[in-house]
Amino acid sequence: MTQPSAKRFAAPAIDSLPEDIRMRILAVQEKSGFVPNVFLTLARRPDEFRAFFAYHDALMDKEGGLTKAEREMIVVATSAANQCQYCVIAHGAILRIRAKNPVIADQVAINYRKADITPRQKAMLDFAVKVSASAHTASDEDFAALRGHGFNDEDIWDIAAIAAFFALSNRMANVTNMRPNDEFYMLGRVPRA
Amino acid sequence: MTQPSAKRFAAPAIDSLPEDIRMRILAVQEKSGFVPNVFLTLARRPDEFRAFFAYHDALMDKEGGLTKAEREMIVVATSAANQCQYCVIAHGAILRIRAKNPVIADQVAINYRKADITPRQKAMLDFAVKVSASAHTASDEDFAALRGHGFNDEDIWDIAAIAAFFALSNRMANVTNMRPNDEFYMLGRVPRA
Amino acid sequence: MTQPSAKRFAAPAIDSLPEDIRMRILAVQEKSGFVPNVFLTLARRPDEFRAFFAYHDALMDKEGGLTKAEREMIVVATSAANQCQYCVIAHGAILRIRAKNPVIADQVAINYRKADITPRQKAMLDFAVKVSASAHTASDEDFAALRGHGFNDEDIWDIAAIAAFFALSNRMANVTNMRPNDEFYMLGRVPRA
Amino acid sequence: MTQPSAKRFAAPAIDSLPEDIRMRILAVQEKSGFVPNVFLTLARRPDEFRAFFAYHDALMDKEGGLTKAEREMIVVATSAANQCQYCVIAHGAILRIRAKNPVIADQVAINYRKADITPRQKAMLDFAVKVSASAHTASDEDFAALRGHGFNDEDIWDIAAIAAFFALSNRMANVTNMRPNDEFYMLGRVPRA
Amino acid sequence: MTQPSAKRFAAPAIDSLPEDIRMRILAVQEKSGFVPNVFLTLARRPDEFRAFFAYHDALMDKEGGLTKAEREMIVVATSAANQCQYCVIAHGAILRIRAKNPVIADQVAINYRKADITPRQKAMLDFAVKVSASAHTASDEDFAALRGHGFNDEDIWDIAAIAAFFALSNRMANVTNMRPNDEFYMLGRVPRA
Amino acid sequence: MTQPSAKRFAAPAIDSLPEDIRMRILAVQEKSGFVPNVFLTLARRPDEFRAFFAYHDALMDKEGGLTKAEREMIVVATSAANQCQYCVIAHGAILRIRAKNPVIADQVAINYRKADITPRQKAMLDFAVKVSASAHTASDEDFAALRGHGFNDEDIWDIAAIAAFFALSNRMANVTNMRPNDEFYMLGRVPRA
Repeated sequence: MTQPSAKRFAAPAIDSLPEDIRMRILAVQEKSGFVPNVFLTLARRPDEFRAFFAYHDALMDKEGGLTKAEREMIVVATSAANQCQYCVIAHGAILRIRAKNPVIADQVAINYRKADITPRQKAMLDFAVKVSASAHTASDEDFAALRGHGFNDEDIWDIAAIAAFFALSNRMANVTNMRPNDEFYMLGRVPRA
Repeated sequence: MTQPSAKRFAAPAIDSLPEDIRMRILAVQEKSGFVPNVFLTLARRPDEFRAFFAYHDALMDKEGGLTKAEREMIVVATSAANQCQYCVIAHGAILRIRAKNPVIADQVAINYRKADITPRQKAMLDFAVKVSASAHTASDEDFAALRGHGFNDEDIWDIAAIAAFFALSNRMANVTNMRPNDEFYMLGRVPRA
Repeated sequence: MTQPSAKRFAAPAIDSLPEDIRMRILAVQEKSGFVPNVFLTLARRPDEFRAFFAYHDALMDKEGGLTKAEREMIVVATSAANQCQYCVIAHGAILRIRAKNPVIADQVAINYRKADITPRQKAMLDFAVKVSASAHTASDEDFAALRGHGFNDEDIWDIAAIAAFFALSNRMANVTNMRPNDEFYMLGRVPRA
Repeated sequence: MTQPSAKRFAAPAIDSLPEDIRMRILAVQEKSGFVPNVFLTLARRPDEFRAFFAYHDALMDKEGGLTKAEREMIVVATSAANQCQYCVIAHGAILRIRAKNPVIADQVAINYRKADITPRQKAMLDFAVKVSASAHTASDEDFAALRGHGFNDEDIWDIAAIAAFFALSNRMANVTNMRPNDEFYMLGRVPRA
Repeated sequence: MTQPSAKRFAAPAIDSLPEDIRMRILAVQEKSGFVPNVFLTLARRPDEFRAFFAYHDALMDKEGGLTKAEREMIVVATSAANQCQYCVIAHGAILRIRAKNPVIADQVAINYRKADITPRQKAMLDFAVKVSASAHTASDEDFAALRGHGFNDEDIWDIAAIAAFFALSNRMANVTNMRPNDEFYMLGRVPRA
Repeated sequence: MTQPSAKRFAAPAIDSLPEDIRMRILAVQEKSGFVPNVFLTLARRPDEFRAFFAYHDALMDKEGGLTKAEREMIVVATSAANQCQYCVIAHGAILRIRAKNPVIADQVAINYRKADITPRQKAMLDFAVKVSASAHTASDEDFAALRGHGFNDEDIWDIAAIAAFFALSNRMANVTNMRPNDEFYMLGRVPRA
């Protein structure tokens, strides 16, 4: 079994990284037990690394009308449409954990229209996928439909911004051939005792 | 959590089915420990059921130049392109088991170009996905490329026929809202002791 | 004038075929005056041949809410969208005969939206073409629209299943370079005395 | 059987038309035995009518490196891609007559890649279909490929200009719901005694 | 800085042209101060030149329910969708002049849905872009929507015919690599004293 | 003339903003003579604002193998493909200034394949547009082609990252209905004395 196309951009040695980046990577390793490859790949460019994770955290860790599981649903649905292996597998794991649901990530990735989600969540994903694929056609009718499901303006911004941020993230992962860590595949599939 | 759209076509009671179909269903239940939903959904139409599984078995259980794992890769890659939840999840499980590889199915489903497969397998999937999406452009150059990877005419027929059969299968699963059984999600993810 | 790309898969000699397949081929020759090429091409694989025609007959020869001409309209409209020369020309001939209408097949093949058909038939073809091109988006609204035109659940299954079966058939014909017999072009174009 | 959508733009009475247009229509009727609907529909706008047919004649009736049958092949292939019922059926008839070939028009309309044409004609149609669908990507490589098949600059202009002119024609026919005359369907299908 | 791909079709010398064409070119030079390249490129084929400009003038210079600025909006929006550099830049200049608005052309070219236009004009451009991209789906509902904005049948014909004519024009400009004259870029951007 | 759809997200009052954001906005106003709307729209979310501009500056203001004009070409070409009015018009102005070329931005926006750029720049934009539209198909062949034009790995990362960042930016601008300031349209069109 061969690795498809040698890694395009070699990851820098952790010891060679600026202190703040090295600290963040060690912290995630401490917490997760491994270093997700996105940290190593993007560390090649410290300034972009810092901006990327600052943006990520601003969108994914905030409070608001969307639950954390719902934010991850947006990541998984739009990343699947963009055929981004890293994002679907890594964020699929996070979605399973946040939703405490071992099957939801695969359902949302393959065809969210048939996933076991609420009509409100389906409307959220309809819009997220539209922003991802054809934001130039986003219309006032889309806003009205979302408001009809109880989303307010800040929620709508969140949906759009998460879809937009992962439009960036998916492209970087695909171009750099970012490979999901093997650990992600099983995370959240079996209930913890 | 709601079920998306009530089941569109109610499955018939197993007891009401013709003997041969009932026997096949009980046999698969005996072997797998559960009845995959495709058997129940298609049993509504006994003649179509018989033709469907005869076709399936003729393509998937035969000997030939493609391994059984490779046949399942074709199913997973083309079904993912068609956003068929049932086929990706059910055949993803079979692929993991046949390939004895817990991560291969998710990789192939999301972006087979980046999966841990051989160049020959990638050429196979390039052609399968082309047959699935735009068979009208299949050309002599495609045949030559496959022969360059060691595939003979029977192998090429197999690749095309599996992609074609699941073009049918994906459409029936999507229209009938066929839901993958929960059992499939974990199959093949952990090595058996 | 050259034949485009030498025949990709040579047809087997009729005498070499299993008895049941040979009998079916001779019967169709007896009835039609010629052997449609689909029989010869698919006979290369007897098990697939049997499943293919069993499936075909189960869908196309049954009784039900769709007339036989309407079933053929579905074949012609979806096969045209898939640019399948064999299926459009062969089933176009059958459609002309079943509908006793010498112009209907060409109209449906080129743009069914402008064919001389009823609004109910147009709704049927709208759904068939959707199943053929993007079954993953088939929705409860589609079912409701069809019911509004008087189609019941069995009719809807028939429409979807015919579109799905010819998704398979079109792909096999395109990959094998199946050539329509010259006899098909004129069938049904002039009223029999 | 209903006519799909009442005729959108009523044809003017022939007697009410300017003399030159009336004469042209009577001449075509004299020659063909019927008045093709394109003449009646476009006569609503005399100046556009004159420009349309002047353009048409400049491209289709001229001498040059393309035979008249080849010019009609371009019309049929590109009009089929645009799902223009009028142009495919009317020019399909002319193609059959000019090529003295009763099956060529249906083959070219459904999938020209599999029609009984020469490699040079296939290259011509590849370019014509590209001009029709995505002229913005026409490149110097396309010109080189055509020259490799013996086309000179005037031939290339002709191919492009015919594809471009019928891009206009197809859109007018589709918007006005132009219906092909019943006479076209049989023309050229049986050899004249 | 290189010119992309040498000019594909050399323009004829003005002195070598038929008198009527030479006169028209000199007249436009007199009026505009330069000869727009479309005149020189198309002059290679005098008959096509005459038909082209006769058609153009019949559509763009006529009276009717659409203002001259609105006609140019249709040209700019559809030509941008076709990525036609010559038509967007040349007709963008004319649009700025006719609308006496220095920003309207760029807005309409990039995304007319967000341009500073009226809802009626947006409906006009929605239809024009549909005719340009998928006229085969033009439906009675489209006609009803336009009538709801006050467009009558002649206006609808005009919208469709302008979109159709520039479908031709865009393809010729793209294939011939027609380059917009530098003069067009600034026209209409600053108010005349 | 109406504004299309009332502004979707009201911009916050500058006085209400965090000090660092207010300072940045005043600095850009000082330098440019106006506040580009992207600053006001994104200021609604201070953390996202900071990450957005940190990312932007890391990519657009750095040294490297791409000139600043070339970076702006990537923005303009990919933003045009995404129909993003704000980014095409604002960065088109910056491109004109950086390239000291009054026509380059419009050429690149409408069809970069026909712009007055070098073959190396065209290869750069081919890849950028591919990353923007279908990064999942980015292949080792693409990397080889870029290296053939003298781009090194850091340059390739830059091209991809700029295309990826503006994939984000275009989506936010389209969803928020961000309107380009009128000042941008004329910038860089006339040489400064």
